[in-house]
Amino acid sequence: MIDTDALIVGAGPVGLFQVFELGLLEIKAHVVDSLAAPGGQCIELYPDKPIYDIPAVPRSTGRELVDSLLKQIEPFGATFHLGQEVTVVRKEADGRFHVETSKGTRFLAKTVFVAGGVGSFQPRRLKVDGLDKYEGTQLFHHVKTPAAFAGKQLVIVGGGDSALDWALHFAQDGPDKAESVILLHRRDGFQAAPASIAKMRALCDAMQMQFIVGQITGLEEHEGRLTAVKVTGGDAVTRVVPLDALLVFFGLSPKLGPIADWGLDLERKQVVVDTEKFETSVPGIFAVGDVNTYPGKKKLILSGFHEATLAAFGAAPYVFPDKRIQLQYTTASPKLHKLLGVESPSFDD
Amino acid sequence: MIDTDALIVGAGPVGLFQVFELGLLEIKAHVVDSLAAPGGQCIELYPDKPIYDIPAVPRSTGRELVDSLLKQIEPFGATFHLGQEVTVVRKEADGRFHVETSKGTRFLAKTVFVAGGVGSFQPRRLKVDGLDKYEGTQLFHHVKTPAAFAGKQLVIVGGGDSALDWALHFAQDGPDKAESVILLHRRDGFQAAPASIAKMRALCDAMQMQFIVGQITGLEEHEGRLTAVKVTGGDAVTRVVPLDALLVFFGLSPKLGPIADWGLDLERKQVVVDTEKFETSVPGIFAVGDVNTYPGKKKLILSGFHEATLAAFGAAPYVFPDKRIQLQYTTASPKLHKLLGVESPSFDD
Repeated sequence: MIDTDALIVGAGPVGLFQVFELGLLEIKAHVVDSLAAPGGQCIELYPDKPIYDIPAVPRSTGRELVDSLLKQIEPFGATFHLGQEVTVVRKEADGRFHVETSKGTRFLAKTVFVAGGVGSFQPRRLKVDGLDKYEGTQLFHHVKTPAAFAGKQLVIVGGGDSALDWALHFAQDGPDKAESVILLHRRDGFQAAPASIAKMRALCDAMQMQFIVGQITGLEEHEGRLTAVKVTGGDAVTRVVPLDALLVFFGLSPKLGPIADWGLDLERKQVVVDTEKFETSVPGIFAVGDVNTYPGKKKLILSGFHEATLAAFGAAPYVFPDKRIQLQYTTASPKLHKLLGVESPSFDD
Repeated sequence: MIDTDALIVGAGPVGLFQVFELGLLEIKAHVVDSLAAPGGQCIELYPDKPIYDIPAVPRSTGRELVDSLLKQIEPFGATFHLGQEVTVVRKEADGRFHVETSKGTRFLAKTVFVAGGVGSFQPRRLKVDGLDKYEGTQLFHHVKTPAAFAGKQLVIVGGGDSALDWALHFAQDGPDKAESVILLHRRDGFQAAPASIAKMRALCDAMQMQFIVGQITGLEEHEGRLTAVKVTGGDAVTRVVPLDALLVFFGLSPKLGPIADWGLDLERKQVVVDTEKFETSVPGIFAVGDVNTYPGKKKLILSGFHEATLAAFGAAPYVFPDKRIQLQYTTASPKLHKLLGVESPSFDD
């Protein structure tokens, strides 16, 4: 059981900046995130795309933004618990929160900060009646063991980097080479690295794989096995494509997930907060960033930064009930300089 | 008379970012500031001091912060009107605001954004009975015409760069050399460039100027002229220091100034705003940054950035009454890319 003053749920940019603002108030934090690395949407959705509206940062990719934030919070030594979702949040008799994650990590936290963004990311699914029951046997949204697909007839669906990369992987010579690879996408256009697209077209020309424009509109099954998918093309012709395994790469889609069950007041799947402390309907639980809602709310990272700041001040009385908290400035305060591990100017006036 | 959609009063970091957020909504702005250059407090008070709490900017001096913001707003071509204060704000019958500055610049603005920080900067004054009446004849807080002080007996008061720089200027050989220079500061310690301090001490050793630790506690006058000041040292001894002119450099202190007379609801000299649009009690006038107040308000630059953003959205209906304004993201929106003058990714999905 980990005792902590603050538990932050979500390691996206706003969760990371929450560490900073808590740190300035001498509040140590633990951070939980369902992804394997910090950064949230910035890393998951646009690691290499430029962002232009971070104030005083004219241009920064998602990855650069996260790197800057990680550098900024370094002095505060937050502990990260990654690859796990918070499953249980329960208020104890003493006012603290008992929190458990999907990996069994348990916390006793004085304050909780929900920085869950738009939720945890789940693979977007192909909607075809009767398909879901093959999940894990013939339908896959991730490739965990590439060797399991060697020598098989594969249909790979999607138009992004994941679909392209796995199609290339299984179509080319190597230990995991499939018997056949058919790449299926609804249009002849890809959101992927130009080099991968070129390589795919070259393999198609060499008859080492096939690319079909179309959508899956039905299944063929035999004795509990998926034997083929029906593919309808832009020409409205449907053909039957036999397969051993169907790999779907439609990207990730966010789900609010277990946060919905914590007993917080919600409004259209957003956590309702005040604008003074960004506190939820449960005292001691704050919500910052894209996950919250209040009059005027815009889902912008820069707003999350402001929210995290006021939430830190809102949380301080729970952590230090007897201390009067004053706003200090990082330009001038020797105390903050010490916390940040930087030198104070030596001027004496 | 300049017709404008938006007039921003204050060119500090928040006023500058207001240009950016308005620009993303295609609202062009004019900016007025009492100082001679953009940057506000960042430039006036801590151009070279590091700031550590700008999100995703682990360290930046005041000057660097302002430079980054100026770069960020470049695509939006705001017009700056510097070195002038807004003196008149009057609502016209058609709902627009008639605005005039101390230099006579006149605007007709659909919306006004008060980003006045802690107010306009006025020189901090030396409080000695009977001294003020010599302002401009023998008492100075600025040096406009250095040659006017050549050959005079000068007493220069202060411990910062301005005091040191002018003391050195008038003590050293050159066209403006004074008859005598006495630098007076309440303690033997300076908030100034180490090189200037060393130079001053060298000039003292060479008897080219004098440094006295002490405070002015009285005046001597003769026939309507200030003839000397009484200086009390740390040893409680008071001595009489004759002079022709007294130059006081105590830095600048902010005053809310004329904003107080615009008819906006105030609370302890702060402009009251809502937290949805950061609009004042006068519809169409918004207030952002250190000048405003609302429950939870912290005077932090990062909060001003958020406020400016919601204020821009709050202002849009005044500028485009018939347009539905939607939040777009700078990572993804081709329209915003065009406004920002950057290339849109060519991926077609």
